[in-house]
Amino acid sequence: MSVLWTVKVVGLGAAALTLSLELLGRLFGRLKQRRTLNEVLFFPSDMACVEHIFTPTTTHSCFCPLPHGVETSFSRLLRHILSASSSLDLCIFSFSNMDLCRAVLLLHSKGVTVRVVSDKNYSAITGSQIGVLRKAGICVRCDVVSVCMHHKFAVVDSRLLITGSLNWTLTAVQSNAENVLLTEEPDLVQPFIKEFHRLWVLNDPTQYYQNQ
Amino acid sequence: MSVLWTVKVVGLGAAALTLSLELLGRLFGRLKQRRTLNEVLFFPSDMACVEHIFTPTTTHSCFCPLPHGVETSFSRLLRHILSASSSLDLCIFSFSNMDLCRAVLLLHSKGVTVRVVSDKNYSAITGSQIGVLRKAGICVRCDVVSVCMHHKFAVVDSRLLITGSLNWTLTAVQSNAENVLLTEEPDLVQPFIKEFHRLWVLNDPTQYYQNQ
Repeated sequence: MSVLWTVKVVGLGAAALTLSLELLGRLFGRLKQRRTLNEVLFFPSDMACVEHIFTPTTTHSCFCPLPHGVETSFSRLLRHILSASSSLDLCIFSFSNMDLCRAVLLLHSKGVTVRVVSDKNYSAITGSQIGVLRKAGICVRCDVVSVCMHHKFAVVDSRLLITGSLNWTLTAVQSNAENVLLTEEPDLVQPFIKEFHRLWVLNDPTQYYQNQ
Repeated sequence: MSVLWTVKVVGLGAAALTLSLELLGRLFGRLKQRRTLNEVLFFPSDMACVEHIFTPTTTHSCFCPLPHGVETSFSRLLRHILSASSSLDLCIFSFSNMDLCRAVLLLHSKGVTVRVVSDKNYSAITGSQIGVLRKAGICVRCDVVSVCMHHKFAVVDSRLLITGSLNWTLTAVQSNAENVLLTEEPDLVQPFIKEFHRLWVLNDPTQYYQNQ
């Protein structure tokens, strides 16, 4: 057997091995990419105490009559919203749920940049928390262009999309048949980031008053 | 150089080659999986003629005053709904849009299995197309359990999820700020299939009347 032939075989083996390693690397890369969050929550949610989500140290010290230590659709929604570390962009038709308002205020107090776009009519109804957000210094813009700003979505840290049929009200959470879809899939998140920016700029009060 | 050594090298090369081929196969498999549809549509939609979507042969023979040959959010939504070949499961709060009703009727006439869950109160309001669907023989069940059946989702062929803030009304399509998310991602589609089944069974009129 010639030396040349042996070199060929060794070369082939080496090439095949490096190719395998490269493919393995890519495969693991793709598998890693695949670990994006995709989750669906349905409502009405079971009722349970959520105090420990806001103040983790009080897990065992809340004496309210609601069940404790129970994971519900609502508690999962709260956790995802509170996972924001840099920004929360919220585009919501109706916002009267006080726990969700507390979550947004908590994020704001921690330095998370919160921006809210809401419907011009629904932001002023009894029980709306939009005024509470504004009073806390959160920038809220009301959609003055559409007949109805009917969105119910939020984008957390430009990474996680929270969207669906659920308005941020107590009735929606506790009584209605509703859905909330959570995804980190860039093809789905990016269009919402773009749309939020478009609505944010479109409803800039400075621009709006200039156009009157 | 011994024969044994050569056999080892050849064996290594062969093993590396087969590993490469297997990995290539898996990689292509994953890449193929990745080609799942993910799309977002925003509303209000531009207005355009959609006659050619219902009757493709009439592309150039419609003389209505609306723009022709223009792709809009609404025309894309229609196309996705009309892509159903075996089933359409629709869970909708408010359904008064006549083009969307026409699409559902067309699918039904083609033998697609259509099932509709709607809200008990909104299914009877003026302009609702729920009665039209029932008259055509489509099975509609009204949610009698929730305070409000507020979902706005459809599942096409147990494959494509259509969900968002958009009720199937003319106002929502033409005037409101709304979103529709379309995805074939199994992690997102499967929970909606399961939830539709749950609501379908839960609102079976036979069961309902038995429970009275």
